[in-house]
Amino acid sequence: MLVANKDYRTIWVNDTHLPDVQIIDQRHLPHRFVVETLSTYKQMATAIKEMHLRGAGLIGVAGAFGVYLAYRDAMYRNNSVEFIQSAISEILNTRPTAVNLKWAIEIVTSRVENIEAIDEKVTKALEVAKELANLDAESCRMIGVNGLPIIEEISRKKNGETVNILTHCNAGWLAFTDYGSALSPIYHAHRKGIKVHVWVDETRPRNQGAALTTWELLNEGVPHTLIVDNVGGHLMQNGMVDLVITGADRIASNGDTANKIGTYLKALAAHDNGIPFYVAAPTSTFDFALETGLGKIPIEMRTGDEVKYINGLLNDKVVDVLICPTQTQVANYGFDVTPSRLIKAFITEKGIIAPNTDEITKLNC
Amino acid sequence: MLVANKDYRTIWVNDTHLPDVQIIDQRHLPHRFVVETLSTYKQMATAIKEMHLRGAGLIGVAGAFGVYLAYRDAMYRNNSVEFIQSAISEILNTRPTAVNLKWAIEIVTSRVENIEAIDEKVTKALEVAKELANLDAESCRMIGVNGLPIIEEISRKKNGETVNILTHCNAGWLAFTDYGSALSPIYHAHRKGIKVHVWVDETRPRNQGAALTTWELLNEGVPHTLIVDNVGGHLMQNGMVDLVITGADRIASNGDTANKIGTYLKALAAHDNGIPFYVAAPTSTFDFALETGLGKIPIEMRTGDEVKYINGLLNDKVVDVLICPTQTQVANYGFDVTPSRLIKAFITEKGIIAPNTDEITKLNC
Repeated sequence: MLVANKDYRTIWVNDTHLPDVQIIDQRHLPHRFVVETLSTYKQMATAIKEMHLRGAGLIGVAGAFGVYLAYRDAMYRNNSVEFIQSAISEILNTRPTAVNLKWAIEIVTSRVENIEAIDEKVTKALEVAKELANLDAESCRMIGVNGLPIIEEISRKKNGETVNILTHCNAGWLAFTDYGSALSPIYHAHRKGIKVHVWVDETRPRNQGAALTTWELLNEGVPHTLIVDNVGGHLMQNGMVDLVITGADRIASNGDTANKIGTYLKALAAHDNGIPFYVAAPTSTFDFALETGLGKIPIEMRTGDEVKYINGLLNDKVVDVLICPTQTQVANYGFDVTPSRLIKAFITEKGIIAPNTDEITKLNC
Repeated sequence: MLVANKDYRTIWVNDTHLPDVQIIDQRHLPHRFVVETLSTYKQMATAIKEMHLRGAGLIGVAGAFGVYLAYRDAMYRNNSVEFIQSAISEILNTRPTAVNLKWAIEIVTSRVENIEAIDEKVTKALEVAKELANLDAESCRMIGVNGLPIIEEISRKKNGETVNILTHCNAGWLAFTDYGSALSPIYHAHRKGIKVHVWVDETRPRNQGAALTTWELLNEGVPHTLIVDNVGGHLMQNGMVDLVITGADRIASNGDTANKIGTYLKALAAHDNGIPFYVAAPTSTFDFALETGLGKIPIEMRTGDEVKYINGLLNDKVVDVLICPTQTQVANYGFDVTPSRLIKAFITEKGIIAPNTDEITKLNC
């Protein structure tokens, strides 16, 4: 997608033999555009854990490239099996909620395990990581294609008037390799000339909406308005939202969906006001081993400093400011689970899927 | 209530003839404790509009003292009736949502209007403003007395285990003259030795929870945890909230309640999880002239800069940092309306009131 009119992905490699991995370091957005080069699995693990990159799909792809880097690192460590196993386990444990990380790592390791020579392992791991990146981008493109008719239909019903879409957090291309999940149908509609306007939830504590979604939409020229997380219910009560689309970090077989903290509140408000609430996600986000989600999906708790300090720009410098008394105790839950009953449908690369076990299980083929 | 172990109110006058008015300038909390002296009605109007003070009850009392200052100012302007009328109208228009402002100003003006001599008008206005301040404090004390049994009952049912209470925004003593509305029952329970713990919603965009409620609870020694506004639903789903108590800015006759933006979302989550949702407010917050609230109560829109810039402490200085792209468009709604059907009951100084027109109308006597 576009950054100052130039096409980018969120993660890529140089065109050399056994290249380093490069990512957009999202911690600096929207104020600065910084590319980070990752040369070791350790650097990748840090990048995932410290959220230089984030988003369900991108975490998965980054994990795959992390496994490639782990094998590459192993070449300088006598190809130690223990080293590789410990490295992969370290990558796997960087973020607990998104299932894509586990999914992607398992694909790479299973495709590599029967290869003998370490240099062939490295080459294969790189090849599979690239495949997964392309698959992720293509899945997101297809999510856009499949979600587009939903927006088109509302636009028709409104006689071409602007379709107002609320989204939470960042489920745009910055959360994947390209296109995004929740934002992909919106980009497709916008490019097709359908009038859309996006209500962007700020998404405290890390402000992915304020910092990333606004920045994406700005670069793509999609009309949007930033709101604090408290506002969505009021807008829905007053007819100012036509549909809600969010992403997902893990979806159980019955449709219960873990997504960024606060998603559940917006789903409740949509339900209370008869507004369709869609979850857009590639099938790699579905956890078919999990029957239900409530109380079952591990919810990441992050450092309280993300709540107590807010990151922002002051005189061209990015700083952290304290917003409460120093000694205040804080709890920082990263995700919540939206019950299946509040979800209208899932927008996936394989089509629109009803939120029930029968339909979801069919995806696992 | 306590500030560093010394008792304070939020607004008071010196013990002199025709004194100036003093307030805690809440813009500096929690980082600095600043007292502001207001000598003219203009200064009071600015203090209300620019939120040196805020909160339904306190806005009302401040409006009353503002009318006193307007009469006092008029003494130096040949007691001009036009001046007084324009001053009072200016005070009335500082904040549109809270009904207490109109209520308090009408009481002072009606008690003063039949007095001839300007100096007697001034004395009477001061007397009435002081009365209203005392009434506000006493109402809040009684809200605590009447709300206490709700917490006691939950404590009993939990065999004395900690009662977890979620609150939104600041409806503590800083929002009134003393005690507060939502926090008053909590203070009463805590002082009685009942184990309570408060989940404090940050309350974006102005962070009254992070800045004011934490500061109040800290000074009173009440256990509490700060969370972002997105978290409440997750806590309620997981049995970590026993009840919700919020304040109110205006309550219609049928019980529809305007309160700080985001309140509606928490009421939905409480309802979805079978958790009692109480609104604590003095009867001065009820707008008996309004049959219903949804779409009827004027919702204040404030400057977008409150969303784009966040106020915090950096190296002992309070600064504003930008959290989104400079050119981002923003909408900043200050309040939302929680429908009556989501409210368990109102905790008032006159007792616990069911959320229906019959019971609410009886209060208007």
